[in-house]
Amino acid sequence: MTKIIAVVGGKAADTRSLDLAYEVGKLIAKRGAILVTGGLTGVMEAACRGAKEAGGLTVGILPGDSHESANPYVDIPIVTGMGEARNIVIVKTADALIAIDGKYGTLSEIAIAVSLGKPVVGLNTWDIPGVIKAATPDEAINLVFEP
Amino acid sequence: MTKIIAVVGGKAADTRSLDLAYEVGKLIAKRGAILVTGGLTGVMEAACRGAKEAGGLTVGILPGDSHESANPYVDIPIVTGMGEARNIVIVKTADALIAIDGKYGTLSEIAIAVSLGKPVVGLNTWDIPGVIKAATPDEAINLVFEP
Amino acid sequence: MTKIIAVVGGKAADTRSLDLAYEVGKLIAKRGAILVTGGLTGVMEAACRGAKEAGGLTVGILPGDSHESANPYVDIPIVTGMGEARNIVIVKTADALIAIDGKYGTLSEIAIAVSLGKPVVGLNTWDIPGVIKAATPDEAINLVFEP
Amino acid sequence: MTKIIAVVGGKAADTRSLDLAYEVGKLIAKRGAILVTGGLTGVMEAACRGAKEAGGLTVGILPGDSHESANPYVDIPIVTGMGEARNIVIVKTADALIAIDGKYGTLSEIAIAVSLGKPVVGLNTWDIPGVIKAATPDEAINLVFEP
Repeated sequence: MTKIIAVVGGKAADTRSLDLAYEVGKLIAKRGAILVTGGLTGVMEAACRGAKEAGGLTVGILPGDSHESANPYVDIPIVTGMGEARNIVIVKTADALIAIDGKYGTLSEIAIAVSLGKPVVGLNTWDIPGVIKAATPDEAINLVFEP
Repeated sequence: MTKIIAVVGGKAADTRSLDLAYEVGKLIAKRGAILVTGGLTGVMEAACRGAKEAGGLTVGILPGDSHESANPYVDIPIVTGMGEARNIVIVKTADALIAIDGKYGTLSEIAIAVSLGKPVVGLNTWDIPGVIKAATPDEAINLVFEP
Repeated sequence: MTKIIAVVGGKAADTRSLDLAYEVGKLIAKRGAILVTGGLTGVMEAACRGAKEAGGLTVGILPGDSHESANPYVDIPIVTGMGEARNIVIVKTADALIAIDGKYGTLSEIAIAVSLGKPVVGLNTWDIPGVIKAATPDEAINLVFEP
Repeated sequence: MTKIIAVVGGKAADTRSLDLAYEVGKLIAKRGAILVTGGLTGVMEAACRGAKEAGGLTVGILPGDSHESANPYVDIPIVTGMGEARNIVIVKTADALIAIDGKYGTLSEIAIAVSLGKPVVGLNTWDIPGVIKAATPDEAINLVFEP
């Protein structure tokens, strides 16, 4: 089955994190995997943009009640209407997570993923036991696809 | 944006309903829309099979904790781990619903859809005010795409 | 264990339905059961008011992100932030449901309850197979407590 | 309105953490607040036991589909059937959290709480920015009730 990789991270991130997310999204698409994100702005949008430029497929699992909050690079908006509980759906849907930057919402996704035994690779993000640190997008992708 | 159409209905349906679901899935794909279902057996599986044979894209919004319960025609399994609450996500994600056969789970989806103002077309299903009755898959599709 | 009885019904109901809900709430409290509702206005509020006047305990399972939407007769506001998905939590939490009046949201609760095998008693509400009709609050209560 | 305080922490905790949870539960009840937990074993059960011995009221927001998983000190079992997504409901329902011990599930609750701006007091738990450290149950309670 096609791999599904989540990229999680801040709604409002600095340029470095957005560049990392864009590269990661691109590489996920190049590996033939589906990208899943929270569908909003920042790291989520940059990853979706990268994936679309590389011809990938993107899923956005949205917290609100309308697909209109999805960033323009989301192919398939999943409208949960469940607020932060959608973070759990992102984690359960993904085979592995790549966390980039991010604040406490991202930390909750990392925590749930580790508790469920899903691999979490971190780029410039929370330094929590259980997160596999990567220095570059290439390294992050290798850790996810050839663990 | 690409339309997203949900097909909802029984996990265990009779041959007539499965045939209807298969045809409806096919027609949804031919119109270029994305098919969303609950991802399991019966009407859900028949619709996904139809959509895949016509080259479409299928999303399965699953109640359980693993993508392994998805039928083999689901391209994108969304793993909610939320049981029946995933019915709400199906409804909110879809632009319109086509209900085929189905018992009380299907009725709950019809009810939520009508309460949210989403069009619900019914084929051989609950006869509830708010459901637009169709006699054939073609008619159902026309009611959804050219209302 | 103390019985938990849900009263479900319209946010905006007519006087007759509000009177029924008030009486039902009162009788639930007199039987020593806990009342659970969706915590908002209309039938939910009338039932909670009845239960409080009879010295009962009331739980409101709210769709929004704050306890401020709870009616003044809710002792314990459960804040789900999950919109209509909270309907499922109401049903799963209750040992039995009494439905009074109500539109499509109520129908979704009835449908989920019947699908889960929970008793549903109806007073002036949807006439769906699986709903046990009662003519008065007393009859409804008897059907729930001495089935 | 009566304060609602959540105690979050490990399903399987060591004696020291269980003792802390028991004391914290007792003190929450003595302050007249309602205790909310995830309703299961370990820290959750110890806190509920403490609260009941002090005459308090306890709510257990359960992940599964039945109230039977609730520990014996839960007065009001809320049955979500939503797995880990019930962590979000615990956080949104509480005015403040006290975290004791705990692994990644607890970390997810701390993270969501901080992201929603709810006070989180920590006793022998994750040392994350945003968690207000306490050394004793008394100190934890004072930080929650007289911040």
